[in-house]
Amino acid sequence: MSKKPLILVTNDDGINAPGIRTLISVMNPIGDVVVVAPDSPQSGMGHAITLNATLYSKDVIFDDGPQKEFSCSGTPADCVKLALRELLDRTPDLCVSGINHGSNSSINIIYSGTMSAAIEAGIEGVPAIGFSLLDYSWDANFEPCRAFVKSITENVLQHGLPKGVILNVNIPNIPEKDIKGIKVCRQAKANWVEEFDKRKTPQGRDYYWLTGKFVNLDGGNDTDEWALENGYVSIVPAQFDLTAHHFIKDLNNWNL
Amino acid sequence: MSKKPLILVTNDDGINAPGIRTLISVMNPIGDVVVVAPDSPQSGMGHAITLNATLYSKDVIFDDGPQKEFSCSGTPADCVKLALRELLDRTPDLCVSGINHGSNSSINIIYSGTMSAAIEAGIEGVPAIGFSLLDYSWDANFEPCRAFVKSITENVLQHGLPKGVILNVNIPNIPEKDIKGIKVCRQAKANWVEEFDKRKTPQGRDYYWLTGKFVNLDGGNDTDEWALENGYVSIVPAQFDLTAHHFIKDLNNWNL
Repeated sequence: MSKKPLILVTNDDGINAPGIRTLISVMNPIGDVVVVAPDSPQSGMGHAITLNATLYSKDVIFDDGPQKEFSCSGTPADCVKLALRELLDRTPDLCVSGINHGSNSSINIIYSGTMSAAIEAGIEGVPAIGFSLLDYSWDANFEPCRAFVKSITENVLQHGLPKGVILNVNIPNIPEKDIKGIKVCRQAKANWVEEFDKRKTPQGRDYYWLTGKFVNLDGGNDTDEWALENGYVSIVPAQFDLTAHHFIKDLNNWNL
Repeated sequence: MSKKPLILVTNDDGINAPGIRTLISVMNPIGDVVVVAPDSPQSGMGHAITLNATLYSKDVIFDDGPQKEFSCSGTPADCVKLALRELLDRTPDLCVSGINHGSNSSINIIYSGTMSAAIEAGIEGVPAIGFSLLDYSWDANFEPCRAFVKSITENVLQHGLPKGVILNVNIPNIPEKDIKGIKVCRQAKANWVEEFDKRKTPQGRDYYWLTGKFVNLDGGNDTDEWALENGYVSIVPAQFDLTAHHFIKDLNNWNL
């Protein structure tokens, strides 16, 4: 039996995306790699799961390499559930998700299929990291990500992560030589200001396209947005206890 | 112009679900009500948003009452975005989501379309509450919810909520007279242990249904699970800053 760590690789851009192909090639020398990823793009799926439909998975081969691969008809969170319960022989030592084509910094973690897959692994007690590059294009250049992905992955395998903590890693879209290093950050208080592009169908019915502008209202220099704007790779340790602990005392003073 | 608060009502079970019908009827005497809800069930959609498809909305009338109603082809989070940017004349004073057919306590908040709609409103700076009844059936009895929904809503309108805090309210499925009161809680450390029901299509291809068992590993008596098991309505103040602040210091000691 292999002494190498078992690494589950997933994403939300789909199993054939260049981002996950790069991630697989960085993971192969580190561990025994099993890929379980969506058969089609699932960006913006958040933490959706498939409750009222059937799930399919299929052995596939996309490129050379020692990894084993399955494509799955479900969401990123579905892929992780299916991997852990059905497709893997044992609990993996690590789950890595990405490399996402586009940012998952700040509030984007909430909408992100990539991060939901990592969070799902975290819920199941598997150390997990989500990686994203700040370039939405399909043919983004993932080469500058390799060294950072490798170093952060090896650190997680060495140190482990506390129960309930997942790492959200974002990599700026600048030449590798200009990246100043890695910064541990908190999630910036930023959000999207949506604009809906309202149009009419040829039959005259109104419809909308969701578009928007990202607005960072957070002046702190300890945030992921600050780090990325200033040429650093950002790591936010994230969690899935959504309790606003600081407000419990006040709420207890209400006349409920 | 009306002096009554403007209340946005949404859900994830779909605009014709009995749960949202009850919620609308409780809100009508409290404020001016506008409903923007999915045209079909969206349970388990998490914080999914529609990035690569068009969105439709339609004026609809489902039952008597002063409320204005729109059905929307998108997810619960889409409904809130579309309401705030396109369908409402002004920013609402409150967003209420639900009443969900089934629990959104503990880790379920992560998978919940109902709570994602409330969180989306919170991200946009609108005070928001998600309500859920611990009965998954379509013909659940929502009557025992009325007094609690009314009291909590009136409290939020009176006190407001701090920026970034949303309330997650769950109501036990027991007779009204047996409900002991309302408890402010933290999110229990509980999760789903999935089981996949593996079957074969008539053509011989494997497929899966996602099923599972909810497991509460949290012995605390300050959790939502404890409150619900002991006959209380639970309120968890929730937030969308997912930073694991407690782990930032340790992570800074890694050799990254």
